Order: sequence, then C-alpha cells, then structure tokens
Amino acid sequence: MRETEAEARRPAGSPRLGVGMVGYAFMGAAHSQGWRTAGRVFDLPLQPALAALCGRDATAVRAAADRMGWAGSETDWRALIARDDVDLVDICTPGDSHAEIAVAALEAGKHVLCEKPLANSVEEAEAMVAAASAARSRGLLAMVGFNYRRLPAAAFARQLVAGGRIGDLRHVRVTYLQDWLTDPEAPLTWRLQRDRAGSGALGDLGAHIVDLAQYLSGESVVGVSALTETFVTERPLPAGPAGGLGGTAAPGERGPVTVDDAAVFTARLSSGALASFEATRFAAGRKNALTIELNGSRGSLSFDLERLNELSFHDHTEPAATAGFRRILVTEPDHPYLDAWWPPGHGLGYEHTFVHQARDLVHAVAEGAAPVPTFADGLQVQRVLAAVEESAAKNSVFTPVQVSVPA
Amino acid sequence: MRETEAEARRPAGSPRLGVGMVGYAFMGAAHSQGWRTAGRVFDLPLQPALAALCGRDATAVRAAADRMGWAGSETDWRALIARDDVDLVDICTPGDSHAEIAVAALEAGKHVLCEKPLANSVEEAEAMVAAASAARSRGLLAMVGFNYRRLPAAAFARQLVAGGRIGDLRHVRVTYLQDWLTDPEAPLTWRLQRDRAGSGALGDLGAHIVDLAQYLSGESVVGVSALTETFVTERPLPAGPAGGLGGTAAPGERGPVTVDDAAVFTARLSSGALASFEATRFAAGRKNALTIELNGSRGSLSFDLERLNELSFHDHTEPAATAGFRRILVTEPDHPYLDAWWPPGHGLGYEHTFVHQARDLVHAVAEGAAPVPTFADGLQVQRVLAAVEESAAKNSVFTPVQVSVPA
Amino acid sequence: MRETEAEARRPAGSPRLGVGMVGYAFMGAAHSQGWRTAGRVFDLPLQPALAALCGRDATAVRAAADRMGWAGSETDWRALIARDDVDLVDICTPGDSHAEIAVAALEAGKHVLCEKPLANSVEEAEAMVAAASAARSRGLLAMVGFNYRRLPAAAFARQLVAGGRIGDLRHVRVTYLQDWLTDPEAPLTWRLQRDRAGSGALGDLGAHIVDLAQYLSGESVVGVSALTETFVTERPLPAGPAGGLGGTAAPGERGPVTVDDAAVFTARLSSGALASFEATRFAAGRKNALTIELNGSRGSLSFDLERLNELSFHDHTEPAATAGFRRILVTEPDHPYLDAWWPPGHGLGYEHTFVHQARDLVHAVAEGAAPVPTFADGLQVQRVLAAVEESAAKNSVFTPVQVSVPA
Amino acid sequence: MRETEAEARRPAGSPRLGVGMVGYAFMGAAHSQGWRTAGRVFDLPLQPALAALCGRDATAVRAAADRMGWAGSETDWRALIARDDVDLVDICTPGDSHAEIAVAALEAGKHVLCEKPLANSVEEAEAMVAAASAARSRGLLAMVGFNYRRLPAAAFARQLVAGGRIGDLRHVRVTYLQDWLTDPEAPLTWRLQRDRAGSGALGDLGAHIVDLAQYLSGESVVGVSALTETFVTERPLPAGPAGGLGGTAAPGERGPVTVDDAAVFTARLSSGALASFEATRFAAGRKNALTIELNGSRGSLSFDLERLNELSFHDHTEPAATAGFRRILVTEPDHPYLDAWWPPGHGLGYEHTFVHQARDLVHAVAEGAAPVPTFADGLQVQRVLAAVEESAAKNSVFTPVQVSVPA
Repeated sequence: MRETEAEARRPAGSPRLGVGMVGYAFMGAAHSQGWRTAGRVFDLPLQPALAALCGRDATAVRAAADRMGWAGSETDWRALIARDDVDLVDICTPGDSHAEIAVAALEAGKHVLCEKPLANSVEEAEAMVAAASAARSRGLLAMVGFNYRRLPAAAFARQLVAGGRIGDLRHVRVTYLQDWLTDPEAPLTWRLQRDRAGSGALGDLGAHIVDLAQYLSGESVVGVSALTETFVTERPLPAGPAGGLGGTAAPGERGPVTVDDAAVFTARLSSGALASFEATRFAAGRKNALTIELNGSRGSLSFDLERLNELSFHDHTEPAATAGFRRILVTEPDHPYLDAWWPPGHGLGYEHTFVHQARDLVHAVAEGAAPVPTFADGLQVQRVLAAVEESAAKNSVFTPVQVSVPA
Repeated sequence: MRETEAEARRPAGSPRLGVGMVGYAFMGAAHSQGWRTAGRVFDLPLQPALAALCGRDATAVRAAADRMGWAGSETDWRALIARDDVDLVDICTPGDSHAEIAVAALEAGKHVLCEKPLANSVEEAEAMVAAASAARSRGLLAMVGFNYRRLPAAAFARQLVAGGRIGDLRHVRVTYLQDWLTDPEAPLTWRLQRDRAGSGALGDLGAHIVDLAQYLSGESVVGVSALTETFVTERPLPAGPAGGLGGTAAPGERGPVTVDDAAVFTARLSSGALASFEATRFAAGRKNALTIELNGSRGSLSFDLERLNELSFHDHTEPAATAGFRRILVTEPDHPYLDAWWPPGHGLGYEHTFVHQARDLVHAVAEGAAPVPTFADGLQVQRVLAAVEESAAKNSVFTPVQVSVPA
Repeated sequence: MRETEAEARRPAGSPRLGVGMVGYAFMGAAHSQGWRTAGRVFDLPLQPALAALCGRDATAVRAAADRMGWAGSETDWRALIARDDVDLVDICTPGDSHAEIAVAALEAGKHVLCEKPLANSVEEAEAMVAAASAARSRGLLAMVGFNYRRLPAAAFARQLVAGGRIGDLRHVRVTYLQDWLTDPEAPLTWRLQRDRAGSGALGDLGAHIVDLAQYLSGESVVGVSALTETFVTERPLPAGPAGGLGGTAAPGERGPVTVDDAAVFTARLSSGALASFEATRFAAGRKNALTIELNGSRGSLSFDLERLNELSFHDHTEPAATAGFRRILVTEPDHPYLDAWWPPGHGLGYEHTFVHQARDLVHAVAEGAAPVPTFADGLQVQRVLAAVEESAAKNSVFTPVQVSVPA
Repeated sequence: MRETEAEARRPAGSPRLGVGMVGYAFMGAAHSQGWRTAGRVFDLPLQPALAALCGRDATAVRAAADRMGWAGSETDWRALIARDDVDLVDICTPGDSHAEIAVAALEAGKHVLCEKPLANSVEEAEAMVAAASAARSRGLLAMVGFNYRRLPAAAFARQLVAGGRIGDLRHVRVTYLQDWLTDPEAPLTWRLQRDRAGSGALGDLGAHIVDLAQYLSGESVVGVSALTETFVTERPLPAGPAGGLGGTAAPGERGPVTVDDAAVFTARLSSGALASFEATRFAAGRKNALTIELNGSRGSLSFDLERLNELSFHDHTEPAATAGFRRILVTEPDHPYLDAWWPPGHGLGYEHTFVHQARDLVHAVAEGAAPVPTFADGLQVQRVLAAVEESAAKNSVFTPVQVSVPA
C-alpha cells in the first residue's frame, strides 16, 4: 500500500477517523487541504485519515488521489461508502447528487459532510434532514459545509453579536459579487445549468450569504421580495470536461443558460430588522466580494471576504468624538481558531475555513455532539432560496419563508 | 443701506443676478455659502447678489441675513418674490411649501431654484412641472437642487458612463446611510412628521439616491419593490424651535413618528439592469454614507460620499493581472469644476456642491438654457418615491413607475 | 467706492478688522476665501474687512481684488501697510520677501499673518521673531500660517495626545508626498529657485510636516540626520509669468534647478522618540499625501491629508481582540471648529483650514492673546530645516537643532 | 516505521527529496506546512519527504515531529545532517547557529535552506557564502529564506518593476512595524538577547525589508544613515522555555535587553534613488505592517503585508483624470504561483510563502539551477545591517555598504 497522508498519525495511539470524499474539483481540493492540515495544526481527539477519493474517471481520480494525499480511490460512490476504512463521507459534488449520496451514506452508517447548497430543492433537503435525524439516533452526524462560518472574522463577529455588542438589530445588508460571467463568451459550465446546479448565482452565492446573515444575526429570514435576471441567455459550450468555474469555450456550438445570473432581494428577519441581499457574477472588478454589514442600536459590524482577516466594528456606546469603525485584524490568539496559527498580523487565507471545518467536525464526532450548521440549517437556507425564486416569479410579492428551526 | 455681499461686484459692469432665498436653516446656510462664493472662484457671466432672505421671525431672519451676507430680509415669502431686486427665488423650506412658493415665484416672473425633494407628492410636483413649463416660454428657468450631481466625482462618473467606459449596465447598488435616529430619545423634529416632510428617510435620503442613480446611469427607474419600516414609533417633542436635524428633546411629552425610518427597495432600470436602494437613519456609525456602485460589461464605478474627493474606477478591458479598482482623486484640473479650485490633492468639501450649483444656474440664466436637473427630473424622482410607498403598502409587489421624461 | 465683501458687516456695530494682503496667487486665493468666510460661519468678535490687496501689476491686482472681494488694491506693499483701513497685514508672497514685509508691517503698527515657511533663513526668521517680540509690547500680534494645525482632524489629534490617549511617544513618521515634478519637462517656476524659495520640497513641504510633528507631539525636534537630492537638475524656463505650481514651459531655454527635489531625514524628539520625515515632489500618484503617524505606549494616531476628514486612532488599552485602528470621521459637533459647520459626515475641504486660521486670529486680536503658531514656532521649524541642510551637506551626520522655545 | 507525510509520494516513481529540519518553533511550523503542502498543490519534479526533525529535547522534538508530519527525529543536528535519507537541510534556529550548521551541512553534501537573517555577523555570512560557493561546484545548492519574495504580490511587483512599468526609480519607503514589545512587561525572550539574535528589530524585521527593497527595486543599498533605540532596557525573564515571541514573564527576576527595539535609517540605492527604512516592535496597533512603496518616473507600487493579497499600482503614463492607485487583487491565474491555487478573490495567507519557497527550491534542486535569494544575497543584507549599526554608533554618519553581488 502506498504511504500517504491518509495514514499519517500524530500522537501514538490517537484514534483514526477515516474520510472518504466524493468529487475532486475546486471544492475537493479545498476539502483535501482541510483534512490534511487540521491535525497538523490543531490538537485533535481523532486523526483524520484520507482513506479514499471517488470520481468517475479511474485514471483521473487516481492521479488526483495521489496528488492530494488520498490513500485509495473509487469510481463509484456506492463503493466508497461501503468501505470499512471510511467513517465519514465528504460530498463535494454538484448539488444534484447531494441528496442521494448523503442519504445513502447515512444509511450505511457513515457521518456526512455535505457541501452547500444542501440540495437543489426543498424536497431533497427535507429528505436529507429526515435521514440525518434518523441517523442521529444511531450516533451519526451530518453537517453542511457553509465554510464561511469558520472564517475567524465571521466567528468572532458572531461572538460580538451574541454578546450584545451591537444591541437590537436594525439592518443587515449583504452582497456576494463576482465577475466571471461578465464576458458573454465565458463557457456554459455545469454551474449555468439548472439540472445540475439547481440555480445560478442564487444557489452558489446566495446560499452563502443567506446562511451567513442568519448565522451572524442569530435570526431567521421570515420573508423575501426578489428580482432575478439572466443577462446572457446563451453561451458557448465548454471545450473538454466542464469544470465549474472558467475553462475554455468550444468554437461554434452554444447552449442556453438555464439559471439566474443575478438575484437581488429584500427581506425581513424574525426581529423585524430589514435586510437586503445581492448575488451576482456580473459585478466587473469584484472577484469574491462577500460583504456583510449589520447595524444595531449599540453598534455595527462590517466584513468583506476580499479582506478576510479584517473585521470592522463600530461601538455606538462610545463618545461620538472618538467613535468610528475600527479595523480589527482578526489574528490575535484570543480570536476563534487563532491560537493554533501564527503570531498577530500573519493573515490566514480562504482555504483555512476548510481546515477549521475539518477541526470542528472531528471534535463533534469525537464528542458525539451535533455539529453546526446542521442539515436543518441547510434546509432553512434552501427554503429562503425557494422563496426568492417564488417571489421573483410572482412579481416580487413578499413571500413568507417557513421557519422550522430555531436560528 | 448696509453694505453686504449682496451688492459685491466683480468685474466692473458685470450684470447682476438678484437672489432671494426662503429659509435659513441647514440648507439656507449651505446655499448662502454657494451664492457668496460662486463668483469669487468661477468666472461668471452674471454676478449673484444676495438681495434678501425670508423667514417667519423678523428678528431671527434679520440676524441670519446679517450673518450670512444677505442685504435685505422679509418675513413673508410673497413679499420676497415681489421685490424688484430679486430675479431668482431660492426655496430652502421643508417640502410642504415648495409647490406653493415655486409656482407663485414663477408666475411672478422669477427664476426658481427649489431644494429637493421637489414636493411632498406627485400631484404637487406635477403642478410645479406645469408651472415651470409655462414659465419657460417667458424665459424663466426652474431647477431642483439635487446638489450631489455637482460633486466633481459624480459629474466625472457621469462623463465616464456617458463615454461608454463601463459598457452595458448590469447593476446599480446605492445606499444612503445615516445614524442620527439610532437613539430612541432623539427628538421629534419636522423631518419626522409626514405633514411637513412628506416622508422620512425615503424623501430625505432616498430622493438623493434615486436622482443620483438615474443621473449617473442615464436611465430611469421603471419599477420598484419595497419594504419600509418605522423602528421607533414615538419620540420626545423637541425643546424650542425644531430644526430638522438634532436639537434637544423636551422633557416629558412625546409624539408619534409619522414617517418611515428606513426604506429598502429593489428596482429595474430602463435597460433591464438591476438596482438596489437603501435609505436609513439607523445605521450606527454611518454618518453620511451615500454609496453608489455601477457595474457594466466594460467596467465599474464606485463612490462614497464620506470620501467625496475620490472615485473608484475599474476598467474591465485591461488585462486581468493589472486590473483593479483605482482610487482617482477627483482633484485634477481636468475634472469637472476643478480648474477653478486648488492644486491636485487639495480636497473640496460638502458645501462646494452648492457653489457649483450656483455657478451652473448662473450660467444657465445668462445663456437662457434650461438647467438640469429640471422640475421634470424632480417629478420623476417623486414618482419613484410614490411607487416605493405604494409597493411597501401592497406587500412589496413590483410597482411600475410612470416614465415621462427621457433620462 | 465699490461695494465689496471688504465692507460687509454682520452684527450692526460689530467692530471691524481691516485686512491688507500681499500676494494673490494660490495662497492669496486661499486666504481670501478664509477672510471672506470666517465671519459668515463663526461668531466673531471682530468682522474682517478685506481692505486692500497688493501686487506688482496694477491691472492684474485690481482684477484679482475684484474677483476675490477686496475693496482696494495697491502695487507697493509699503503703501499697503501705510493704509489707515488696514489693521492686519497678511503676507502671501514667496519666502524671500517675508522678513522685510513682516518687520516693516509690525513697525508700522499692524498685526501680521505670515505664510510659511516663516523665512528663507534662520537669520531672517530671528529678525522676525525679534520684531514680533518688540511689537508684542505695543499690543501687536504675529502669527505664522501653518494652516494644517487648523484641520479639525489635526486639532483633535492634538487634543488626544495632550489628553494622554497615546501615552509615552515612541515613534513619529511623517511624509509629504506630491508628484508635480515627476515630469522632467515641468517648468522652472520660482519654487525651484533657491533665491526665491529658499529651498525646495524641504521648505515647501518639509516645513509643514516639521511643524505638524512638533505640534501634534508637543515636542521639539532636537537633531536630524538627512539626505537631500535634486533628481532633475535642469528644466525649461516657464512661459509667461511664473506661478508657483505648474504653468507651461517655454520652448528651448532651460535653467538650473537650485533647490532640492526631495529630502528624507530621521530625527530625535525631545522625549527620545524616533522620527522619520520625507518631503518630495517626485512620488508619482501621490498628490498631496501629507501622512503622519504617532505611536505611543497607550495608543497610536494616523492621518492622511488626502482624506482630511478622517483620523485613525488605535486605543492600545483595549482588549486585543476588539482593538484596532478606528476611522473617526472628524465631523461631529464635538470636534474642533465643527459646531459651526454641517451635520456629521458632511466633510470639509482644504480651504477650510484658512477659514479656521482667520477665525482663530480674529479671536486672538480681539482678546489680545498671542496666537499660535508664533513667529518663534516658525523660527524653530526654520532651525530644523537649516539643520537638515547642514546634515545633508555633512555626510548625514546627526546635527543638533538649537531649541529656544518650549514646544 | 511510522507512516507519515515524510514518505508520501504523488506520481508513482516521482523521485524523492529528503528534507531534514533543525528547529521547530514558529519558523519550523511554517516551514513544515510549506514542505507538507508544496507537492499537494504544485506539480513538482521531486517529492519532498519530511525525513527528520531535529531539536535538543528528545521528547519534545518527537512530539513536534509527530504533530508536524516528520518521520524521524534527532537531538543533535550533526546526526541529522549525517542521515542518508536527508538530501536537504532546512535551518530554522536562531541566528547564532546558522553559520555552523549551514557550513557543516554543505560540507556533508547536503543542500541548505537557511532562515533569515543569514547570520548574526558579516564574518559568519562571508564564511557561509564561501562554503556555498565551494559546495556549488559539487552540485549543492544554498538558499536563504527571505520568504516574503514568495508573496504573489511581491513577485508580481518585481515583474512590473523589471518590465519598466514604474520607470526610473526615485523613492523607496519601507516599514516593518509590530507592537509586541509595547508592553514594558513583555518577557525577555531570546529575540531580545544579542548573543542569540544578533540584533533586535533590525535583524528580525529590518533584514526582511532590506531584502525586499533590494529585490523589488533590483538595486543595492549603497549606504545608510541610521538611528537605533532601545526604549525598554530591562525586562522580566521569561517563565519556562523562552520562545521567540510572547510567552509569559516570570515573577521578580529581570534582565537587560541587549538589542535594539527600533531602527530608522535612510539610504541611497545604486541608481541614486532615496530610501527610508523603519523597523520597530513598538508601533502600537501595527501587528505585521511591512509596507513598501516605490515611486518611479512612470509609476508607483505600494504594498502592505497586513493586506497581503493586494498590490497597489499607479500607472503614471495614464491621463491624469483617470489615473490613480489601483488595488490589484493578486489572485488571478496570471499572477505568480496562483495558477495552482483557488479562483480569483479567494485569498492566500502568510504561510503560503513557505509553500512557494519549498516549491521554488525543489525546482532549483531538480534543475540544478542556483536558487535565489542566494547566500550572497543574504550576505549583502547582512552588510547593510552592519552598516546600520555602524552608522548608529557613529552619530548617524552616512556609512557606505560594500556591494559585492549584482542585485
């Protein structure tokens, strides 16, 4: 057997948590980095072992497994979840296969980490929640991968909100702006096809910001009013196997874009606060501009993913003359996750969210505690997205969201 | 006769333009600064003379006139517009008196500059447009005071958009965030009373951003979907004469807030671009955060009134490796209005918008050209605001805006 | 007599302060704006009257006087200081004439405001201090025009330092970066000639930052180690009358640049704190980047003139997790000078420093109190500049600065 | 044998590069992350194997090896360099042992990577250069670990400078500001002891910025004029084994600080450009503020390590009206190192510099090409630091730096 990260052990006798992962594109690479690194940086009660990687092309998946440090490889996800050396299944595929794999994995007695959005429909998500609930009684855990909750700045913002530092919430404004579809000749990847991706900017970017807004505020979105738009309705087919982002276009043939390019919506939160959301891939110059601001009666918070090590905090209880948004470098030992990393000011990157996600999930497994965000949290986001699509289809009328989980 | 700025003349024989102004609070002070300064900095074809200031309290208005440099004073606006030494009437009162004064002034043969919002209702605004139209044939001009169009950064942004530098417009996102009502004990000034102010954040702040979005994009808002909210429904009555902003509260007595505290709405522009708007006085830490961003197929622009000498421009036609939002200090001689001011990097302030407004209006009068923004532009904004209120009242349903003027 | 701002009066019977100004280029225009506006915005005990403007060309100075609002005009500064209607002489000429005019004006019984740098040499500055000292006993005041002390952000920073908010000072780092000489074909104006300007970037920009560093820290520079450089040693002669900044070059003829293009120097302050200074006109893209940062044991302050309404403050006594540089918008009523201006967030501009300077000087005259910065402060800056030149000439050796005034 | 990352192999048959590392504190952890990750992200011609880790305490080093993924462990660096499975020795100890270990490793036939500063004295550094030169003829490579050259933003800035985008260099200004010694009760770690650390802020932070300034400019520092200072001369002894940063203080006992707390110096570069440098651990609120700006005749560049994914570029050849510092997110596939990472806008962190360093060194070994920065580059930095100390000791006199390597 080849010696890989999969079998590395830290403390002698430290128990092993075998991980099997489905999918190895962008998300797969990021998750691999998370699984490889978590135990090297954090003291973990279980040591993640990268047992096997699953993909449809045997040669390609074997090469990816070698590169990313996975011991075994599989071409059928059913084989993967049947492996004895796999305790946890990590699902990094497009949304159309989430429900099937997750439910089967849970039924097969595996813990599950599922990439966001949880599913492509509320129905699928409900089935997943039911499966997770049933599996919970057998000691199995299920988590959805809203990785941005694991940004130290986001986790710290949540602490400040929960600690009352912004008081009664009045406003939340959130954007997730990218620009990779600005060019009308960008190719028609799976992310632009409804049957694979479920929706467009809404499910890909909107899911993140709905979850983050609910997480940071500690509230639920109770209704939305939405506009969506597809600016470019036809694009060239991709040349070669279509990755999710970018790639090259094939000459000649074109196909229809069947998802939204952008979605803007307003919302009310459970406290009565007003919120605005915007998700788009047409904001030229904005590469990954997930921005969120919360205004309350005692203070405000502001964050921009393009400057992910920073959190802006305004303390409204200070004298006006010395008050102002302060730029907190979220790199102090007292900040979430930071005691394991570098000295103050030595910033982390995007991929660290996956290291933290792996860390938190390993702790949850070891301690038998339900990890957040749960599948129910993922369902709740799905319901918001469905309400957005319904509102957009019904002349933007305010559309209530069924709230079944406490935020 | 007292010698004042009112009679100052620059070039010997330079013709005089007599100005009479109604109202002398915040806006009156800002307009006075504009009228006093325009001819000292710019070469003007007519020299503004600050002929008379009008207010209800004779002693107070006389003191204000002395302080601000107005020769005469009046306590009745009808007397003001009747004065022979007044060629132009500048209306700086709350919105409930705009229509009456403006129509009377135009009928009395005076040019009119009217503060925004043009009126408190579409009906009033329509009457004002009709009066302006009738007066136009008699050589009289009417302009509405959307002063932010006169920010050099805004005027330059308009030039870039008109020159095609951002290409086909996809997104506009605009906020106008203030925080002076965050404190529930802030007093109930006229700005919080529907009969005086017409609406709350919507008319005060929303009017500015609707106009600016339409001006910069060169497009009209064709429909909106809105949420509005009054977070604090009762406030202490103000002690003493109630100014618009701040002031102190009287002990004991309270009254109802009859306007919105905040409004968030989405919109479609005539090209199909998506827009989002937010106006609030509850964004703790945001003092005057009028922000606007436009994303197009060839570039993007971004502006923040709290940094009014700067414009951010992303040129999407550049190679990706060297592209990025550039911070243009809009203080070069080639920028609008700047050849008359200081060397590069020596920033201007808020009040300069009123100097520029005075300059542009004086040129229009001298040249007999219709100044923009016209009353029709003001009416168009009013229609958007009315549609916002209608949508908010009708469960946020998308509400079309009648478009009668070319943007 | 022409009616001008010169004779405007505010409160009936408010005493008059007749101002005569020498020079009407960039600084003259800025000072005019200050004198015209101060009494319109602030409650002043004396009302400035713009009595007469002085320049060498009779036609040009008369036109400038008309434009800027000065009643009379003179072509000989000796005539100006002899006028009965002139109580205060404002000197806006290049540095080579400061000493002669200032001394003569003080001897003629006039108050004096002299632009910075106080003089072109320590000897001249000493003579001016002596004249000011002698005149003081006759009730006459003398002030040097370091206008940046009158930025609200700077004045507020001084309050924070004086209040102990940054603790024991460790570091000061200051730059004043411009770029108008980057182009080697920029013309040879008087500012590039030693006999007129005294020095180059050092006297023009360096004087400002030395004064500001001493003012904000409350300390004196006690010694310096310096490098200076002239990158472009020959430039085209200017076409037409040479203004200080910009203008056009004449074809063909060139002359030598006899001043420094840039100066960098380190320093020790009286407390032992380390400081660094840089003044240059060759920093491409930096238009007016006067930046200053102070680090102390309890906090830090940071300021950038290109964002003049902002002050950055780090409170090092806060818990590390919530500490960070906060961006204070220095536009609150509690901030220096701001109670007379606009609501929070409505920023001021560069020229407001001259309004504030006029305000402060009028108060000093009315109250008979010595205004700061005094001529002695100006001399102290001059001594630092001389030490910089001496150090640069002596292989950068640390060169002590004679300190004769308490900072 | 325990299975670790040390033995992981990617492509079957990919040759192995055995790495042995000395030291496992902050730098050791960062290097480990680099060695573990490089082959997982980049296509490498050799696969790094983490063969053995060396430290003085057998138990501690074994635990560290387990945690960080090293197969073996040693307590004597001489044993480490004698191991057959070690091809390359990575030196992460304090500066006082660099020379001895590096020279011995090269003599033992190993490639060497040595942390910065190269040594604690010029003499040691010269011996290391001689050893590296001798070893080079035997096919052995030696590199010094100025990791910040491997920031994508820095590497891209170098490309822009080398491509002529900023033209003739006029100014370089560089700071490296931290604040962890602001508290006078921070403990006396080895970094504050001259015999271990060589110097204080100068060697630790100053070495980085001297190298970076020389690298980015492509020029050498030819002379310096310096001030240094120790603000707090006595500190509590550390409790327990003293790490380099932080740790806790022992009660009671104190010892002398024998290195500088801060160093400020001016410099001339080979082209005649002026430079300023500041290194300090007393800048309250600045956590890791390595900032560098270069101004040239055609443009400027600006960088701040606290925002390490961004580079600011001003193109001075553009029309003034649209010119300005643009914020480039250095996360595009066309940027150095980025094609192997995440989509645009998904930022990297501090530790990625060590991944890139490992990548570049592996390529150099495979290709037999001398890696930069060479030991000669490290010596050159050492000479600058020595000149700084000499100048500071000699009243700041300008002190030439012997330049023996082409920059």
